[in-house]
Amino acid sequence: MREVAVIGVGMSPWGELWRSSLRDLFAQAALEAMKDSGAPRIDSMVVGCMSSGLFNGQEHLGSLMADYAGLRGIPATRVESACASGGAAFRTGVLEVASGASDFVLVGGVEKMTDVSGDAATRALSAASDFEYEAYQGATFPALYAMVARAHMDRYGTTRKQLAMVAVKNHENGLLNPRAQFRQRISVDAVLGSVMVADPLRLLDCSPITDGAAAVVLCPKELAVKLKKKPLIKVAGIGQASDCIALAQRKDITRFEAAALAAQRAYKAAGIGPDEVDFAEVHDCFTIAEICVLEALGFCKTGQGGRFTEEGHTSRLGRKPINPSGGLKSKGHPVGATGVAQIVELVEQLRGSAGERQLSKVRCGLAENMGGTCGSAVVSILTREGA
Amino acid sequence: MREVAVIGVGMSPWGELWRSSLRDLFAQAALEAMKDSGAPRIDSMVVGCMSSGLFNGQEHLGSLMADYAGLRGIPATRVESACASGGAAFRTGVLEVASGASDFVLVGGVEKMTDVSGDAATRALSAASDFEYEAYQGATFPALYAMVARAHMDRYGTTRKQLAMVAVKNHENGLLNPRAQFRQRISVDAVLGSVMVADPLRLLDCSPITDGAAAVVLCPKELAVKLKKKPLIKVAGIGQASDCIALAQRKDITRFEAAALAAQRAYKAAGIGPDEVDFAEVHDCFTIAEICVLEALGFCKTGQGGRFTEEGHTSRLGRKPINPSGGLKSKGHPVGATGVAQIVELVEQLRGSAGERQLSKVRCGLAENMGGTCGSAVVSILTREGA
Repeated sequence: MREVAVIGVGMSPWGELWRSSLRDLFAQAALEAMKDSGAPRIDSMVVGCMSSGLFNGQEHLGSLMADYAGLRGIPATRVESACASGGAAFRTGVLEVASGASDFVLVGGVEKMTDVSGDAATRALSAASDFEYEAYQGATFPALYAMVARAHMDRYGTTRKQLAMVAVKNHENGLLNPRAQFRQRISVDAVLGSVMVADPLRLLDCSPITDGAAAVVLCPKELAVKLKKKPLIKVAGIGQASDCIALAQRKDITRFEAAALAAQRAYKAAGIGPDEVDFAEVHDCFTIAEICVLEALGFCKTGQGGRFTEEGHTSRLGRKPINPSGGLKSKGHPVGATGVAQIVELVEQLRGSAGERQLSKVRCGLAENMGGTCGSAVVSILTREGA
Repeated sequence: MREVAVIGVGMSPWGELWRSSLRDLFAQAALEAMKDSGAPRIDSMVVGCMSSGLFNGQEHLGSLMADYAGLRGIPATRVESACASGGAAFRTGVLEVASGASDFVLVGGVEKMTDVSGDAATRALSAASDFEYEAYQGATFPALYAMVARAHMDRYGTTRKQLAMVAVKNHENGLLNPRAQFRQRISVDAVLGSVMVADPLRLLDCSPITDGAAAVVLCPKELAVKLKKKPLIKVAGIGQASDCIALAQRKDITRFEAAALAAQRAYKAAGIGPDEVDFAEVHDCFTIAEICVLEALGFCKTGQGGRFTEEGHTSRLGRKPINPSGGLKSKGHPVGATGVAQIVELVEQLRGSAGERQLSKVRCGLAENMGGTCGSAVVSILTREGA
């Protein structure tokens, strides 16, 4: 396998963008990433998107987006793995470069979620659950994650306040991110006083509905060296895993097996362990999700995710900064774009170009992107080479 | 890049299958392919599906299908490129094996289309067109292909009878295929007398709505040799290409550029030209589609697809048998499964295990799968190695 580098990144604005269409958003991110990359051409494209069919009446995104990004004719494929669509697209693109089939591959992610009613959006998102056993029975994602939260609190003594502290920390980070959808400081009291969505999860425990796109350009490491990309950002390892998607079929709903398995595979490929990871972007679609993921990635012991958060280890200045971008909670969560945007954040931090939110001395970053209640997960580890 | 072999194939029944769910169909095809392959394990999975969101309220198919095929935990990704989803999934799986990331990869395709009304199915399928410029304006696929047919007749003198002969020939082939949805002989008069759908296309010019799945197992050639797979079926070349998906943006709507480009790439990778192809499965979603594809693949000259058909060259006993399986027209067209089922047919013909429909002396087969009105296309060339 050829080693793969990330040589360009781009993002559209994120938010409620009623004046931009699905293709507008994608093209903005793609053009920015291509310009940033300095690539002489794009050989192939992969688009991550969860449900443009239900949100926009539009499938066939590979060709549509290639055309509107000025790349008509190239192979272009859409990849879907619910909210892990962006991460799965990134892995698909990395394998295409690694195989030798293509040199310069654009990987983008996009979702345009605000053109339908809240009810229709909830139904579209519930297509990430097991339709026959969950969605059809009325279970929505806040309800499913609420069951995970309740079980975690019951089994490990995780507190309502610890959940709130995930949201407070991510909003604090998002304040420094000009691209974040919600740049506002919130307090633990504000979370605890926000409207109940699915007990114990309240509005400020939940990531928002967002329109947005993100894109990256990949190439073999040796071509990145020729293009004089400094610092050189290398894909050190990727792991992907699946699980049953219905919570009722799991042995332990507080343990995110797919994230743990994907992380093991990524660590093995990169030849490192969790201690060598300097910072991470993780899939905080709900506050409880970030807590479960901290455990699955091996950043803390099983059951200790809430305490690890409360002790401040995951803050910008802690020993394992988590979601310096603001995460899904503050930056927004256009589902198909999220996994690609996590890679954008890793690259900007590793390049030292993250502006006000720049972390100090980071050489190794990890992105964890997951679908549904962790029915699928992709973990990517990126490292900065050289000085 | 490692060379890749196809070592196992499987299919579910195809038809109006109201007693089988999306996951049932997929699992049947997957289990059959795994059994046929003799693979010691499956490392990863790719699922082609066009629009399970609109047809079934279900996305996140990679993990769901891995779980129900008994493969919980493996990386599993869904790939979409409208009606070329199966072909794009096949290419994605081939690249994963070629890269060295996985040895044994299951590629499946599935679509469950008959659980919604005909109107809802038409709307779901129209998501393969450009929603803003075509579907939203009321253009359905029969209408779009009718415009292609009218232009081809006008420019090249293609006759209504030649269109009909594509359907007659494919139904003749389907008579020999126990898995075909419509095993019935039809005549030119029956086509010309069938109900008008979109002038000049009549009911018997159109492929049906179908439930079904298909699957194949891939591995590196050297492992296929170790497994003593004889004859050894090798992926000699794959090409994929995109085009603008809206017909109105094309220079010439009778020329399927994406199919031509995909074919050029596949021929180049395989080191052959159209003359070395012994037979092909092509995407005859409408009769005019097969005619345009014959030209795009270089089997006949531009504008001569109708005449080439009328002269009998594409029949079972002609010099270039096309769609020995019965094609989409007779075998059925569960959109996400079609591209994978084409590979199943190539493998069975090349193995000499195609039963009553076995072609004589075939060593090289080609599959052409396309999305929308050829907004995307995947061309795969398979060869039999050895005696």
